Amino acid sequence: MVRAARGYAATSATTPLSLFDFQRRSLRNDDVVIEVLYCGVCHSDLHTTRNNWGNARYPIVPGHEIVGRVKELGAEATRFTVGDYVGVGCMVDSCQHCKTCRNGFEQYCESGATSTYNNTDRHDQSRTQGGYSDQIIVSEKFVLRMPDNLDLKGAAPLLCAGITTYSPLRHWNVGEGSRVAVIGLGGLGHMAIKLASAMGADVTLITRSAGKETDARALGARDVVLSSDVEQMAAAKSRFDLIIDTIPYQHDLNPYVATLDSGGTLVLVGYFGPVEPALNSSPMVSKRKTVAGSFIGGIAETQEMLDFCGKHGITCEIEMIDIQQVNEAFDRMLRSDVKYRFVIDLGSLKSEI
Amino acid sequence: MVRAARGYAATSATTPLSLFDFQRRSLRNDDVVIEVLYCGVCHSDLHTTRNNWGNARYPIVPGHEIVGRVKELGAEATRFTVGDYVGVGCMVDSCQHCKTCRNGFEQYCESGATSTYNNTDRHDQSRTQGGYSDQIIVSEKFVLRMPDNLDLKGAAPLLCAGITTYSPLRHWNVGEGSRVAVIGLGGLGHMAIKLASAMGADVTLITRSAGKETDARALGARDVVLSSDVEQMAAAKSRFDLIIDTIPYQHDLNPYVATLDSGGTLVLVGYFGPVEPALNSSPMVSKRKTVAGSFIGGIAETQEMLDFCGKHGITCEIEMIDIQQVNEAFDRMLRSDVKYRFVIDLGSLKSEI
Repeated sequence: MVRAARGYAATSATTPLSLFDFQRRSLRNDDVVIEVLYCGVCHSDLHTTRNNWGNARYPIVPGHEIVGRVKELGAEATRFTVGDYVGVGCMVDSCQHCKTCRNGFEQYCESGATSTYNNTDRHDQSRTQGGYSDQIIVSEKFVLRMPDNLDLKGAAPLLCAGITTYSPLRHWNVGEGSRVAVIGLGGLGHMAIKLASAMGADVTLITRSAGKETDARALGARDVVLSSDVEQMAAAKSRFDLIIDTIPYQHDLNPYVATLDSGGTLVLVGYFGPVEPALNSSPMVSKRKTVAGSFIGGIAETQEMLDFCGKHGITCEIEMIDIQQVNEAFDRMLRSDVKYRFVIDLGSLKSEI
Repeated sequence: MVRAARGYAATSATTPLSLFDFQRRSLRNDDVVIEVLYCGVCHSDLHTTRNNWGNARYPIVPGHEIVGRVKELGAEATRFTVGDYVGVGCMVDSCQHCKTCRNGFEQYCESGATSTYNNTDRHDQSRTQGGYSDQIIVSEKFVLRMPDNLDLKGAAPLLCAGITTYSPLRHWNVGEGSRVAVIGLGGLGHMAIKLASAMGADVTLITRSAGKETDARALGARDVVLSSDVEQMAAAKSRFDLIIDTIPYQHDLNPYVATLDSGGTLVLVGYFGPVEPALNSSPMVSKRKTVAGSFIGGIAETQEMLDFCGKHGITCEIEMIDIQQVNEAFDRMLRSDVKYRFVIDLGSLKSEI
């Protein structure tokens, strides 16, 4: 039996998101029905609904930084109890059989993970729809347990911004004394600073905008380098073991590669596209430097990240909005006018007639 | 007391190499005087003498794949005995104090390793000159011990081609069952195949030239993929954990990145310059793929490589030449007309009047 659901959807690349009544699929045995309480607003939501990546299939209910409460369980779902506070991130399914899934990297599933919205359910071919809605139905394998001590509103963006930065920090072995730079102080960047400094790293923010020093230090950075200042960039030469590059648009990587020490790695987490101007291989060969990418994280790793945040009391810096303000939030996000993440209170959906 | 030495040198970017009498520096306490027996001909010798990298200071005696016999020792040199067979690779000194030197990565020395030729001695500011000569004087710290069981002629190119491919294979943990691709079947490529297969890897050669299959399999490759064949490249999608890219000129990395499995790494070992056409970051982010560079290896690692080759009976496939044929050898190397490395018999220098 399908379920009546309600949310905000984009119906084309150019129309604002608006109220949308739709149906959630029938409950499968391993499913969890979640009442969505809060949902973060990610840049991907905007990119996808405006078809910037050319793969939009409308209508699209975006949202993949979801925190909610379990309200019903499938017949064989045993991991959660009605009333539990849970999270859902960027994916809701994967093949579960391939080598990468078996190794806990569902995000790199060989046949493609099922993304939380704008994708097709691999069992019944229904369209997936995200967290800008009153409820969502997800296999328990892809549902995360929220730590008891975290504010749920601020914890919502951990499901994407948190894991996207946590995974490369862990993969490249950041720990006590690691010299980490974070490029960009947005949703991803501010989380990278918090997480890396909680791991014991010596964290530097590299930013093109002056005036972010106070905020960056409050988040845990020990230093700030202005990328537009040639002298500051020269002084940062060969300084970092790892750079988390959160810039979501085309940019020159070479000045940042210069700030890597030999053996260092620059990880792109926010930009999909051609690396132009051309990357110069000379310093990479001469000093064994590496340019890599990283994409969210596996489910077990996401739970590990949530538990790490619980232990260290880490949440995102957020600005709460009602669902009716989401189009305005998109516009402000485009102007970088948010510190550092909008989170939608889905309670506001109830005021719609 | 400086020492009279004789070799072949380039005196400008456009003149052929020719007989050259010069002086080696006075013996320092930690020095080893080596009678050069054999010296491999590396692409770098050609690039440097023709000033392709813009840093040539003439006259230049090239050569950094040197095998010889110890004929004299400095007052405090204790690691070798007169008569020992020894090797010298791409560097003859480094600061010995910086973090990278202390960690055994002298090739990434923070103040720059002293290269075997076309460089300046860091103690007396004399010019370094390479192995296309009758003798060389090197601090014992940068002298390698040759395994007893290897043919010295075939072992000479291990000092550059061997370590350049061995180091990334080790750094990226190649072992039993690793899926390794090697791009290009030249001096570096044929060594990468031999070394990786001796480490237990499943090795594939990727080449643009048809007709290399028999040779590649004889060297240890289990498969050959023709890069110009779209179907073969498509069939190789997501197949490799590590790619050793030995191509020494500008080339499109994207078709090769597509053959990396998620988490895989492409390592450039032969190309210094802009990565054009533009590298596409999308598959790197989506599948945590990495593009890296690697440069020769540290001294301890070079000894380890030589011992590994001794244990596995690995030498290079070579064609012996007299020093008088070196200009012709450069021309043939440019046409890829060598299987797979020219090695100069320095005994031929004695015939010069």
